[in-house]
Amino acid sequence: MDNRNLSMLCDFYELTMSNGYFKNDFYRRNTYFDVFFRSIPDHGGFAIAAGLEQIVEYIQQLHFTEEDIAYLRSKKLFDQGFLDYLRSFRFTGDLYAVPEGTPVFPNEPILTVKAPAIEAQLIETYLLLSINHQSLIATKANRIVRAAQGKTVLEFGARRAQGVDGAVIGARAAYIGGCKGTSCTLTDERFGVPAGGTMAHSWVQMFDTEYEAFKTYCQLYPQNTTLLVDTYNTLASGVPNAIRAFQEVLLPQGITDFAIRLDSGDISYLSKKARKMLDDAGLTECKIVASNSLDEHLIRDLLMQGAKIDSFGVGEQLITSKSSPVFGGVYKLVAVENDRGEIIPKIKVSENTAKITNPHFKKLYRYYDKKSGKALADELCLWNETVDPKEPHTIFDPNAVWKTKTLTDFAVRELQVPVFQNGCCVYTLPALKDIQSYCAQQVESLWDEVKRFENPHTYYVDLSNRLWTIKNQLLAGVKQ
Amino acid sequence: MDNRNLSMLCDFYELTMSNGYFKNDFYRRNTYFDVFFRSIPDHGGFAIAAGLEQIVEYIQQLHFTEEDIAYLRSKKLFDQGFLDYLRSFRFTGDLYAVPEGTPVFPNEPILTVKAPAIEAQLIETYLLLSINHQSLIATKANRIVRAAQGKTVLEFGARRAQGVDGAVIGARAAYIGGCKGTSCTLTDERFGVPAGGTMAHSWVQMFDTEYEAFKTYCQLYPQNTTLLVDTYNTLASGVPNAIRAFQEVLLPQGITDFAIRLDSGDISYLSKKARKMLDDAGLTECKIVASNSLDEHLIRDLLMQGAKIDSFGVGEQLITSKSSPVFGGVYKLVAVENDRGEIIPKIKVSENTAKITNPHFKKLYRYYDKKSGKALADELCLWNETVDPKEPHTIFDPNAVWKTKTLTDFAVRELQVPVFQNGCCVYTLPALKDIQSYCAQQVESLWDEVKRFENPHTYYVDLSNRLWTIKNQLLAGVKQ
Repeated sequence: MDNRNLSMLCDFYELTMSNGYFKNDFYRRNTYFDVFFRSIPDHGGFAIAAGLEQIVEYIQQLHFTEEDIAYLRSKKLFDQGFLDYLRSFRFTGDLYAVPEGTPVFPNEPILTVKAPAIEAQLIETYLLLSINHQSLIATKANRIVRAAQGKTVLEFGARRAQGVDGAVIGARAAYIGGCKGTSCTLTDERFGVPAGGTMAHSWVQMFDTEYEAFKTYCQLYPQNTTLLVDTYNTLASGVPNAIRAFQEVLLPQGITDFAIRLDSGDISYLSKKARKMLDDAGLTECKIVASNSLDEHLIRDLLMQGAKIDSFGVGEQLITSKSSPVFGGVYKLVAVENDRGEIIPKIKVSENTAKITNPHFKKLYRYYDKKSGKALADELCLWNETVDPKEPHTIFDPNAVWKTKTLTDFAVRELQVPVFQNGCCVYTLPALKDIQSYCAQQVESLWDEVKRFENPHTYYVDLSNRLWTIKNQLLAGVKQ
Repeated sequence: MDNRNLSMLCDFYELTMSNGYFKNDFYRRNTYFDVFFRSIPDHGGFAIAAGLEQIVEYIQQLHFTEEDIAYLRSKKLFDQGFLDYLRSFRFTGDLYAVPEGTPVFPNEPILTVKAPAIEAQLIETYLLLSINHQSLIATKANRIVRAAQGKTVLEFGARRAQGVDGAVIGARAAYIGGCKGTSCTLTDERFGVPAGGTMAHSWVQMFDTEYEAFKTYCQLYPQNTTLLVDTYNTLASGVPNAIRAFQEVLLPQGITDFAIRLDSGDISYLSKKARKMLDDAGLTECKIVASNSLDEHLIRDLLMQGAKIDSFGVGEQLITSKSSPVFGGVYKLVAVENDRGEIIPKIKVSENTAKITNPHFKKLYRYYDKKSGKALADELCLWNETVDPKEPHTIFDPNAVWKTKTLTDFAVRELQVPVFQNGCCVYTLPALKDIQSYCAQQVESLWDEVKRFENPHTYYVDLSNRLWTIKNQLLAGVKQ
């Protein structure tokens, strides 16, 4: 449990706007905000939603300390009434979200907030930060794990992460995406993601000879031995010294499930040569771990070339999502309540039509084909619309309304679940292990066409007829 | 002051190796590790060192709690004696580092640790993480600030950062690199980086009309008004409504230093049109702030095209260093002390010659031309070598030893300063503002050729004759 109070981790304008809402009595008005994104990292076919657990903890911790208030007062911008209000500030609204590990697509609400204006506004930055960071890493991890075709992928990137949370929380997100473990001890201690690792080159250098370093390590950790074989010369000294240490220390104890790690040079070539040397020495159960600037493309290539690798340690490319290091989630006002409690939809227009928002308080449905279990399409509906899966249901592409499809024999699932209601958490946070399994199962429900790395099929995210109509009415009425 | 205890933010292998050192009594032996990097982000000509202050705090907080030890015990890998040792663990060694804000180059030690093996090993991950993250962002910020040619650059990226520290500490690093402020309130509260911001589109949408939203904001913050003019239509409604609000609310109070912000569309075109509209209305002092996916290249292009922009808000491209999101600092053993306290240099070889380390406990000198004040070259020397600036000094390129240069009329500066001695901090952390000024002044000491974005001149980092000789002797002797 993260018990930091991150209330002040907000953009300064959230505070100036909130002060304005306070003075204009807008703060009693309920507002509706959606978190959604517009494009998928690495031009992939889907993203993996993550970051909700940290948002729950953040909202539960949310309060302003006297130090925070003194700091704000020193700015000479804020009303005394507003500063007093902040003293007893807490989140009293509702929050709905897609569970962590769910594949999500552009323009659909991953998270929806219904709360009085100030509350909804002040949490914007942290909500985006958490969703953007963890969805980014979970999505990248899932790509890498799929490239590894069932072979183990471990997250090794802490030292290259963008800050402490980049490392610790990033490794949590990588686990959601399918990594089996991490090098980061704190992520294991806090989240139970199995931490492991082998040795650094410095271990080998500390001893007079590589053999002595290997032998000592085998004696220390007979059950967990992975020897790093590239400090001097992988094939001329590293692998032979490892074989000797395994044979002299571990085999006599009946231990055969050790490993070597390759961390430089041409991994494909070295793994094949090392495999042969190990097999020739009778060490057929010895595993080969590879690391060094791996990503999904290199892993796919290595496996296509028949590299003899059993598991992959992936560092900087994963923990920073190096090839695509930003997840562009945004937080947009979609509705406000008027004095009579009616929900008034709001729209944000843009010269770039792709940036026009989907207005209103909405539901997000996913339709599955009953026979194959595969996901067919998602549909955004108004909050009070329902879909009866016993009736044929026609959906259409909002960008090409003549393209319709009538679903029959389908299952429907509402993707967002209630997380907070009236400020109380009503959601049982799943165990991280269960989030990982759920993610794998949900990714399995996507067609291969959506999972392709290059030029994947665009999954349909449609609007209901009623929502589409309201959106177009609002667009027609925009004039300021 | 960050009072988190991040002792467990280490790679798990640091702990298994340390347990091994403990059992082999290596932990009494002093070891020497260098932090250095091999290539500059964005193929730039130099990087800006940052992250030292957080390292000082980390080392001062360093301890293992009973919970940490219980967690480690549960792994059934660690010796009871080692776990007891961790109970009273603290850093007792020396640490030398280049001050934050210093331009640094590949293969030179940004930081050097001299400590007993376990202590030096356990701090590896955090040291790298802090240097890698903050140097990355400071370097990127400095590129963007240089592209802006004296115009203000503000850091606006918290929501797209890779985690909490990515946002909060990243904004600190951006300030070192030359940003004038941040959107992140917590970075202001903790580090005094001026936080500011304008309004979100949601503010405008909350009101019945854009004009009413603008007027209300002007009334609330007459001294700090920046109006976001692109919610509906920048030139048709946003700028005219802003002009009207300025004229009706602010001009009558004698206030003329307000601003508008452009956040979408073609910033160059819109800024010129908006500038003309503002000038025609007599609002010649009104500033124009631009944001929206800016980076150093776009800013340079905008200014070349004569865009009328007074300050730039830079978000995701800066806070993640999107075009080059990894700073590849490494932590390598360079020497160990033997039983007689003699320093034995160590080298890590590699098939890739660029990855061969510079052995030994070293000093890092920078030579400046006395006339121009410009930096001429850096030189790595043995720890006990000195340079007399009164004598001509000949340096040579370690990769092309026939290329020599004799320096005369030069000043010499030792770049690393003592930070910890025998576990005590002996370094006075400079104020962040002073780090920013120092950085700007040191960047000024570099030739323009080194500062070019495309294909910059490679600054010389040479080895002293004695160091070069020892390195080559070690290379000749490598056989395992």
